[in-house]
Amino acid sequence: MHEVEVLDEFGATRRISIPAERALTVFVDNRELVTLMTLGAAPELLVLGYLRNQRLVESAADIDSITVDWDVQAAAVKTRAGIERFDEKTAKRVVTTGCGQGTVFGDLMGDLDAIRLPAADEPSARLSQHALYGLLNAMRLQESTYKSAGSVHGCALFRQDELLMFVEDVGRHNAIDTIAGWMWLNDVGGGDKIFYTTGRLTSEMVIKSAQMGVPIIVSRSGITQMGHELANQLGLALFGRATNRHFICYSGFERFDSQPEPARGGAENVVG
Amino acid sequence: MHEVEVLDEFGATRRISIPAERALTVFVDNRELVTLMTLGAAPELLVLGYLRNQRLVESAADIDSITVDWDVQAAAVKTRAGIERFDEKTAKRVVTTGCGQGTVFGDLMGDLDAIRLPAADEPSARLSQHALYGLLNAMRLQESTYKSAGSVHGCALFRQDELLMFVEDVGRHNAIDTIAGWMWLNDVGGGDKIFYTTGRLTSEMVIKSAQMGVPIIVSRSGITQMGHELANQLGLALFGRATNRHFICYSGFERFDSQPEPARGGAENVVG
Repeated sequence: MHEVEVLDEFGATRRISIPAERALTVFVDNRELVTLMTLGAAPELLVLGYLRNQRLVESAADIDSITVDWDVQAAAVKTRAGIERFDEKTAKRVVTTGCGQGTVFGDLMGDLDAIRLPAADEPSARLSQHALYGLLNAMRLQESTYKSAGSVHGCALFRQDELLMFVEDVGRHNAIDTIAGWMWLNDVGGGDKIFYTTGRLTSEMVIKSAQMGVPIIVSRSGITQMGHELANQLGLALFGRATNRHFICYSGFERFDSQPEPARGGAENVVG
Repeated sequence: MHEVEVLDEFGATRRISIPAERALTVFVDNRELVTLMTLGAAPELLVLGYLRNQRLVESAADIDSITVDWDVQAAAVKTRAGIERFDEKTAKRVVTTGCGQGTVFGDLMGDLDAIRLPAADEPSARLSQHALYGLLNAMRLQESTYKSAGSVHGCALFRQDELLMFVEDVGRHNAIDTIAGWMWLNDVGGGDKIFYTTGRLTSEMVIKSAQMGVPIIVSRSGITQMGHELANQLGLALFGRATNRHFICYSGFERFDSQPEPARGGAENVVG
């Protein structure tokens, strides 16, 4: 966190905290790949997940080492045998929704046909309304720790309503990439997991989740059409606008055990 | 807008609207540059502003035509004399904050030294608290037209509290690029203008604004450290967390005429 002096509507100056982002340039086998802006909480995991989600490396075992040196704002990645077709893989840019112009290298839709998520009748790949509320409550408690600074995105990995990992970063793609890196490094499967993100349910989030084998995403925000279409195509369940006891299930109804709230009009629901 | 069927916390299925994003691949002189995900409200302006903000073209006069064909999801840009050093300019990627991984080609900080914003004592390059409230009220009225679908970012150009142009897109960078394209096409200067964005005050937003010569940005969201540092360096005024009669001025105090609200504790402020 970084403190700055501000002026408010009462004409008062005061000091507040803002997120302290840093530039981290990634070099793969001494070749510059990309510069990521990050809070830097877990840079090695971020770089690992980034390489994975961009599908530049196939297996964590292909990577010999990742060395982060903040003095020169660089992450040096050493692979065991180099990256095949490096130029080709990084030549094509797709600017995705993100907050506008996120980037994935290669063919956005590539390899999607190869993705198999667990069947919807698999109990660990389903979510009940009760467990969803438990998950949202866990996030509510978690989020209170970083609310001071704002302007960051949070992302979390759950098994039902059990919080396994939480990370925040200036961008939601960095946050999800860091979780991907963690899963990959620790060989954690996605089939019985649920993603929580404060960001929107865009095509890129759906693709990243599917690539990690995670069949359910919960978001505090809304959805885009491409995100919706891809989720339907992949059989992925999407919950958006999810806070407290409110949510919208956009897709993958077959993974959801609805336990409906009493109909609107009751005093509690009017207030809540 | 696109209608989908959803399920809510009451177990009710209903139809809601979600933003309908489309892929638009940009070809420059028959060479593929990038694919943008967009609502597609003003694709020619978006492409023009994108080329400008990436500093791939120097002047609107360098562009002969932009032809958008939605059937093939492509925008064909024809330049008058080609783009010099095209490969070099598009080779370096910086992944910026955005919602994580926005991209600008070339050196992010390049050319910043050449930017001269109007002096802070220039009346048209200042903002009073009263005019800020007028601007926020104009946005409140404007936003109500697209609130139905959510999940989009709005961006607007103001002269004091007079709304000149408003655009929304799935990403805030697309929105600001579209406004840049409009300004560029119509030869509209930025020195007496104010940007409004629903997105965060990141380094990329500050740079784009400065490149267009706009000395003041107002945002509904918060700020990042790099955005803050760049704004201080450039003498750009940043207002964040701005809705109704609330705001925080993060930088460029010298461009702001504070007209303080009565101190907290008054009944109106407690409610507001």
